[in-house]
Amino acid sequence: MHERPLILVTNDDGITAPGIRALIEVMNELGDVVVVAPDSPQSGMGHAITVSTTLFVEKLKVDSGPQQEYSCSGTPVDCVKLAVKEIIGRQPDLCVSGINHGNNASINVIYSGTMSAAIEAGIEGIPAIGFSLGNFNWNADFEPAKPYVLKIAENVLKFGLPSGVVLNVNIPNLSKSDIKGVKICRQAKARWEEEFDKRQNPHGRDYYWLTGKFVNLDNGDDTDEWALKNGYVSIVPVQFDLTAYSVIQNLNNWNIND
Amino acid sequence: MHERPLILVTNDDGITAPGIRALIEVMNELGDVVVVAPDSPQSGMGHAITVSTTLFVEKLKVDSGPQQEYSCSGTPVDCVKLAVKEIIGRQPDLCVSGINHGNNASINVIYSGTMSAAIEAGIEGIPAIGFSLGNFNWNADFEPAKPYVLKIAENVLKFGLPSGVVLNVNIPNLSKSDIKGVKICRQAKARWEEEFDKRQNPHGRDYYWLTGKFVNLDNGDDTDEWALKNGYVSIVPVQFDLTAYSVIQNLNNWNIND
Repeated sequence: MHERPLILVTNDDGITAPGIRALIEVMNELGDVVVVAPDSPQSGMGHAITVSTTLFVEKLKVDSGPQQEYSCSGTPVDCVKLAVKEIIGRQPDLCVSGINHGNNASINVIYSGTMSAAIEAGIEGIPAIGFSLGNFNWNADFEPAKPYVLKIAENVLKFGLPSGVVLNVNIPNLSKSDIKGVKICRQAKARWEEEFDKRQNPHGRDYYWLTGKFVNLDNGDDTDEWALKNGYVSIVPVQFDLTAYSVIQNLNNWNIND
Repeated sequence: MHERPLILVTNDDGITAPGIRALIEVMNELGDVVVVAPDSPQSGMGHAITVSTTLFVEKLKVDSGPQQEYSCSGTPVDCVKLAVKEIIGRQPDLCVSGINHGNNASINVIYSGTMSAAIEAGIEGIPAIGFSLGNFNWNADFEPAKPYVLKIAENVLKFGLPSGVVLNVNIPNLSKSDIKGVKICRQAKARWEEEFDKRQNPHGRDYYWLTGKFVNLDNGDDTDEWALKNGYVSIVPVQFDLTAYSVIQNLNNWNIND
């Protein structure tokens, strides 16, 4: 890389979130940064795109850094699409998403707007990383995460990523001295055990709040959940070819064409 | 299976869509049917969940069939969660989603609310199938799809599905006599080439409509796109462990812990 790389930064907590501010600060050390991020929180949006309404984009300045910034009324995936096609007008050298306020390890990768933005960039052929911190608070401390974000992004800029793969990076909510290092992991088998909080509105109509607790069903010591519980930063290489290749033969034994 | 199986039906086009009516009609032949589907279209919602607002559920009757029906103000994934935890109160024997008005083959699996509902059921351990027809029209003809929907659902009820796998079934928009049969396939490598339609609102502010064209980058004759183009119903076994296992060793060669 002879010139400074062009880095696209996005997230799902919204453009003013402390997590994206920390990510922008680190990326400004590595390249020329363009931020295109949602104008409001988009957590839990998964890989949603905006097809039935219009998208607004606003150039703005949130802090005094050298980056260019744009807010967008759409989802994280919309932000990546708009950035590449309309705002930058070319593929960036790297797309980073986050730092998410809250863990996106194991099955959370499926629900995560942060990871969907990274996956969208990957689909478009851009090396991409989603970063998340295991702390939901708006005032979470992103300082211990920064050296890992820097190192991982440097490695991706240097070595690239295989086609069809993006990285899901989770950082445990620990002090700098308590983080033990980085582990390359597989996605733990886990799920959410839903609990619906049923209430009645002032007009007597029932409604629900979706809540739930996370259940890890996986005892493997090669998973992202294990790494995080044991003080490591986890990196899971994530693919968007969802084909379960090992099952194809099995299904061919069905008599479905009889 | 001694008793009639309990079948959960959902979709992303909304509870009144002709596609879900066709699916309910077929499922009524196979078991006792409970429908929990969005009260309005949710296309392109991906695996979105509703965490920042409340969910309303309404018992209703859309046609004269024997099924129980509920509409929900949330996303397709919300519908599955609510159905299992609050409405049915136990795991159904099968969850089917669709029939979607429009193709969900290849990379569309990532953006599809129809498939996300099936994937959510799969995460919860329920055998699940998403069905889609290659015709976006509200007045699409679902008749040719019905025998295939029946046969595939029967096979899943009979043989089950491996843990961690759901089926993505796409049906070509052809007459009954022109459909050649069923092929088990892999997901074609493809992507959307975005085109943003930039306009100005009456107050002089720019906005965008997201449009685009589908680009198949994959010449393989074992893909879902190939099958559909050649007159076959495609079945792709889809997994939600997104780990790119083959890349783990490669990443371990990085000097990320130095």
